[in-house]
Formats: sequence, C-alpha cells, structure tokens
Amino acid sequence: MQLLKEKILAQGQVLSGNVLKVDGFLNHQMDVALFAEMGREFCRLFGSEKVTKIVTIEASGIGIACLTAHAFYTEYGQHIPVVFAKKCRTANLSADVYAAPVQSYTHGCCYDVVISKQYLSPGDRVLLIDDFLANGYALAGLRELVRQSGATLIGAGIAIEKGFQPGGATLRQEGMRIESLAIIDRMDDSGITFR
Amino acid sequence: MQLLKEKILAQGQVLSGNVLKVDGFLNHQMDVALFAEMGREFCRLFGSEKVTKIVTIEASGIGIACLTAHAFYTEYGQHIPVVFAKKCRTANLSADVYAAPVQSYTHGCCYDVVISKQYLSPGDRVLLIDDFLANGYALAGLRELVRQSGATLIGAGIAIEKGFQPGGATLRQEGMRIESLAIIDRMDDSGITFR
Repeated sequence: MQLLKEKILAQGQVLSGNVLKVDGFLNHQMDVALFAEMGREFCRLFGSEKVTKIVTIEASGIGIACLTAHAFYTEYGQHIPVVFAKKCRTANLSADVYAAPVQSYTHGCCYDVVISKQYLSPGDRVLLIDDFLANGYALAGLRELVRQSGATLIGAGIAIEKGFQPGGATLRQEGMRIESLAIIDRMDDSGITFR
Repeated sequence: MQLLKEKILAQGQVLSGNVLKVDGFLNHQMDVALFAEMGREFCRLFGSEKVTKIVTIEASGIGIACLTAHAFYTEYGQHIPVVFAKKCRTANLSADVYAAPVQSYTHGCCYDVVISKQYLSPGDRVLLIDDFLANGYALAGLRELVRQSGATLIGAGIAIEKGFQPGGATLRQEGMRIESLAIIDRMDDSGITFR
C-alpha cells in the first residue's frame, strides 16, 4: 500500500537489532487517517470472506483492527466485533479462556495470549489483524486460539511485514493467507527496500 | 448516551467488589459501531475546542480514542493523532519520556504511565479519552503527563463513570472538564441506576 510505504520511508527509523521504529504513526502515536485507509484495504482484500470476527492483540493492533471493522461497516454494512487477545504473564489461567504461549522477540521471555471463550465460537470466521509480522510468534499464538475455539481462520492482515525474518514465509507455508500492506526485504543505515 | 446505557443494561454484569463486567462490548470484545457513536458524541462535546491531540491509555482506551479521532475527521475534516500512554512496571525510564505513577485499583500495586516526549508539546491541546472512570488514578496520571509536557488540557471523554466512586467528583473539583457518556450512581444485584 503506497501511502503506508511513503510513511515508513518518511518517518521510519532503522535501529540496531532489526528494529524499525514507526511509533510516530503506528504504535505509540497513531495516524488514524492512515489506519482508515489500511482498514479499507483489508476490507477490499478480505471483504468476500464473510468475516464474523476480527481478532487482534493488545496494544498496538487494536487501533488498526477497529478501523478495519469500521471499514467493513461503511463499505458493506457489516457489524463485525473486534476481540483483542490479552497478554498475560501469569500461568494463572481460568477454564474460561483459550490460551497459547508466545515467545517475545523484544523481551526474550514468554507470555500467554488469552481470549475469553465467550468471544470465539465454532461458527466464527476470523480475520487476524496486527501491526507487525517478523518471526510470527504472536500470529501463531492467535492462530492457536482460533484453532482451540473451533472457528475458521480466514487469514491475517498485517501492516508491516519484515520479509527478511522467517514468520511470513513459515506461516504461509503452513497454509495461512497473509496480506501485508508493506513487506520490507532489506533495511539498514542506507535505507529501506520494499518487496 | 442512550445507546451506551442500553448496552450496559442489556449486557453488563455487576460482580462483587464494585466490578462492572462489560467485556462483551467495551474492553475485550469491542462493539465498533457503538464506538463510532461514542466518537461522534465526544466530537460534538469537544468539537469547538481546537483539539490537536487525543491521549488515551493502553489497552482498552485505544479503540474508543481511534474512533473519536475518526469522527473528528469525518465531521470536521480534522486530522488528530491519537497517542496511547504505555503502562510500565519498570522504574527504568529514559529521559525521553514523560512519566507518572498510577495506583492500580484492580491489581493493588503501582505502575507508571509513559508517553514519549516527541508526541506531546506545549502547543498541543489535549483531549483525554478512556473507557472507565472510577477512582480516577489513571486519568490523574494522564493529566500529569500533559502537565509535564506544557500542553493544554481540554478535558476528558469517558465511556462509563462509576459515580459512586470518588474520581469524577475529585477531578472535576480540581478543574478538569469531564464528559462521561454514562454515569452509574448505584449498582448491585438488583440492578443499575444511572444519574
């Protein structure tokens, strides 16, 4: 998506450790006009899939997921709830939740992603939304929650995919449909190259 | 706001310890059509205030804040970025952030709310948005971040205020304009009474 790529080139900063800092528009300060465009694009890509639920993960996926749901409403008149998975450090999980462990790339250690069983059912058709895809641990965790619920996974809409990290290739190979609005093949001091 | 009150009456559950469980539409599963209505209402209430920035707190304020920003765009053509304060447990804070301690009602202990200094400046006119107001600790923390930045605080838009807890009264007395879309004066097994 051209607008997102331009934003990344204009405002993104490449830091050491394969970190792309985009917190001026994506994951600390949020450009909601951009999110609305991204939502319309996800809506165009997944609009024919009879999505009944959008699932994301706190915190930075929530804004994009909400604007995507809003786009489904304005484009198709569909009311699609957004469910955000919570990140829990405790193993103190109740029987009322779906839960899956996720390895954290930035923090090293593990956490659980958790969704209340009330909000995912076998009849649901689920679109996953997240801001970043790199090693794919979070997305695999969300996929596992959908599997536990018996719902149908339609695919995943991602804002920025780091194509030089293995998550996207692995998950696609395992059959997940992933639509990333910007895929970065290379980034370093000299610049950013999109696929 | 009538629609929100109806949702609370239809789906809210009063639990022990003054807990109102509304995670079916507000803070786990999110009813984005409702958020869009709430956003339009905040826009109506604060639309003349020349807001330049919406500030909220992760995670459950983000969806409402984003739909509020979207309403400012569709109603007035204004592009207002949303900044979400992060909750940090570490005291390991850099010089690049505004930070304020917040007491947690549900968890007992303390955390810091943190915003990068890049995203709040003296020229900003800030609208705070959050899902709940009870004891007001989080909202007071956000007010402190705005104070540190030198920005002007316009006020706060809240979805649900627990009017029987002291946060709203205290903060209003201290001069904060607070607009709550539903104020609960009493709740127990026999029902919920709005102000």
